[in-house]
Amino acid sequence: MPVNLTAPDPRSLNPVRGVMLGVAAASIRKPGRSDLLVMRVDPGASVAGVFTRNRLAAAPVVLCREHLAALDGRNSVRALVVNTGNANAGTGADGIAAARAVCRALAQRLDCTETQVLPFSTGVIMEPLPVERIVAGLPACIGDLRGDNWFAAAQAIMTTDTLPKAASTRVRLARGEVSVTGIAKGAGMIHPDMATMLGFVATDAAVPREALLQMARAAADRSFHRITVDGDTSTNDSFMLVASGASGIAAETDADLRELGAAVTRIAVALAQAIVRDGEGATKFVTVQVEGGTSEAECSRIAFAIAHSPLVKTAFFASDPNLGRILAAIGYAGVDDLDMGKVDLRLDDLLVARGGGRSPDYREADGRRVMGQSEFTVRVALNRGAASATVWTCDLSHDYVTINAEYRT
Amino acid sequence: MPVNLTAPDPRSLNPVRGVMLGVAAASIRKPGRSDLLVMRVDPGASVAGVFTRNRLAAAPVVLCREHLAALDGRNSVRALVVNTGNANAGTGADGIAAARAVCRALAQRLDCTETQVLPFSTGVIMEPLPVERIVAGLPACIGDLRGDNWFAAAQAIMTTDTLPKAASTRVRLARGEVSVTGIAKGAGMIHPDMATMLGFVATDAAVPREALLQMARAAADRSFHRITVDGDTSTNDSFMLVASGASGIAAETDADLRELGAAVTRIAVALAQAIVRDGEGATKFVTVQVEGGTSEAECSRIAFAIAHSPLVKTAFFASDPNLGRILAAIGYAGVDDLDMGKVDLRLDDLLVARGGGRSPDYREADGRRVMGQSEFTVRVALNRGAASATVWTCDLSHDYVTINAEYRT
Repeated sequence: MPVNLTAPDPRSLNPVRGVMLGVAAASIRKPGRSDLLVMRVDPGASVAGVFTRNRLAAAPVVLCREHLAALDGRNSVRALVVNTGNANAGTGADGIAAARAVCRALAQRLDCTETQVLPFSTGVIMEPLPVERIVAGLPACIGDLRGDNWFAAAQAIMTTDTLPKAASTRVRLARGEVSVTGIAKGAGMIHPDMATMLGFVATDAAVPREALLQMARAAADRSFHRITVDGDTSTNDSFMLVASGASGIAAETDADLRELGAAVTRIAVALAQAIVRDGEGATKFVTVQVEGGTSEAECSRIAFAIAHSPLVKTAFFASDPNLGRILAAIGYAGVDDLDMGKVDLRLDDLLVARGGGRSPDYREADGRRVMGQSEFTVRVALNRGAASATVWTCDLSHDYVTINAEYRT
Repeated sequence: MPVNLTAPDPRSLNPVRGVMLGVAAASIRKPGRSDLLVMRVDPGASVAGVFTRNRLAAAPVVLCREHLAALDGRNSVRALVVNTGNANAGTGADGIAAARAVCRALAQRLDCTETQVLPFSTGVIMEPLPVERIVAGLPACIGDLRGDNWFAAAQAIMTTDTLPKAASTRVRLARGEVSVTGIAKGAGMIHPDMATMLGFVATDAAVPREALLQMARAAADRSFHRITVDGDTSTNDSFMLVASGASGIAAETDADLRELGAAVTRIAVALAQAIVRDGEGATKFVTVQVEGGTSEAECSRIAFAIAHSPLVKTAFFASDPNLGRILAAIGYAGVDDLDMGKVDLRLDDLLVARGGGRSPDYREADGRRVMGQSEFTVRVALNRGAASATVWTCDLSHDYVTINAEYRT
């Protein structure tokens, strides 16, 4: 059961001029479900990507990096192709060849070069990619290409997600209004190993490639890099930002780039939070906010120590204000000169610990009340600086174990 | 259900001359169970300690460090006092005063100084230590002091452990035979927060303090620092090594120190493994062995990434050879220049992946068979150096969530 998350209204998802989407049921792993997406982009678009830091990068990630590096100003990205059901990771040289074959087949049909196609895969690790079935599904995707197909696209990239994830906004720049629309699939790492976060955001503004890359990185730093379900880093994580330029409206000034960047970040944050809300077995959505640090890095380190701790996460699940567990996680986060005697801890606005010890006014019944909510914020004040960091996570429930222990069938 | 672990035979636990143990039921948290231990040490003993790196060190850890630093050659440690039921952590200045009061009360009864007493606590975090009940229990402990009381001592320090943990050996030095006997309690971090590993090992050999500290550190590095149940670092972790010297046999030569050190490490490893075997909800005992690295540090980092991954641990639980999860964990362990194309993965002797991809001969039924055992080894070969590291862990089961989510009653 996702936490306070519903499927997006398809009509709320603004088309992005210059971007068409088509889906198909290619029986990649199971028949009868939409599992293949082609996103076609008009010539002249800019595309930027942020990829997994896992050393076991999946074959499609390797190819994406290679193609993006090879493209110069003239030959822009013309299509993205996404399959579910198979991650094409841990597949070695065969996996690279398989991803290349998919790119080549789509390039032939779209009359562009192989390098102009970016491949993405999500699903089981260490099994050969069924290239034939994917290639056979491409004509149906192409036949289905439409500008208002974002909802179907969000459905096509789902693996263990229980709901499609999409968000959209419009933003006014100096020369006119542009759209920003995105879809994502979650960190459901399940049966058999859908260990993949994918996010695709597009705008019809024109943005120079270098500025777009900065925008993508800034958005990822505030969104997809701020969430954790179980702390595992997938082999396929990719966040792509496409600026088609088809609106004829260029984001040129600093103000425009700021405005557009903020909109992209908003969409990315909405998608990232949706992934946590739909996290495996999640029953609670928890914001962890650490402030008063000497650097964002140390705040972030402490926030993730809390958000990753299985003990803290099971306490969230149980609505058990076992808050020593949070203090202990702060203590072992690896900030060596941290003075625990200065640390305050709050649940929402409730002061729980002051100066590293239990606050005299704190009553456990109050802590239980706050933690009983489906959403709350863990607030840590380090009281030694002006930096802060925020992370979003979920609880660790019985269903997490059930989902991840279930044998692949 | 602990994994292949039984209670030690009390008769197998050799007394250590110069060390007497006494226990009592002091009703610290619950009545009717043994929850207080005094270990009395004859004058002239050497004592060395290895403590938690958590910045939220519990009050007894703070006092142990202070007392050990203050003691000079003349005034040796005369007693260790251990209570369960309350960790005296996150308790601020009051907690320090409380631990000091316990030391003072025991010092008066044993006719030594407060500094010569080392305190240890395990149990709930962030609640005041019930000093009066502990002090009231001391006479019963003292009345119970016996040299052959190791089994009762192991029982007295249990919290959520399902079995007492103790091990003993005898070792021949140049000048005669000495005993090495130890007890430990586990990383059960349960209902309400028994977040504490404690280990006490004693020998009747005489060992100079500096050599003893090196011996303690070396033993901890090969034992208590090599285990993980859920990756949380407790506020109270302490491993103490006592050399009473009461045998009259000094470990003087390098060969003696090596021999004795090896025996201490053996005992520490047995205790550490017992903690994992009795880990919360554990159904499997898994050895993770990483070899062929350029440094022990990188091997250790990769081994812990595997051993900490909730995805890998739920796969262990399910006997599901979902081995991409292990490869993914290797990839995100943070060894930046790692070439996954050189990595081999084995389950016991079964070759699963070669060169970062699935081995052609590997069959999933074989993987399932190995993982179906209650004990097996995950073997990773990095093929880039001569260093190695070993870590012991358990699986992540439904019972882990149940145990840790259960509300404190």
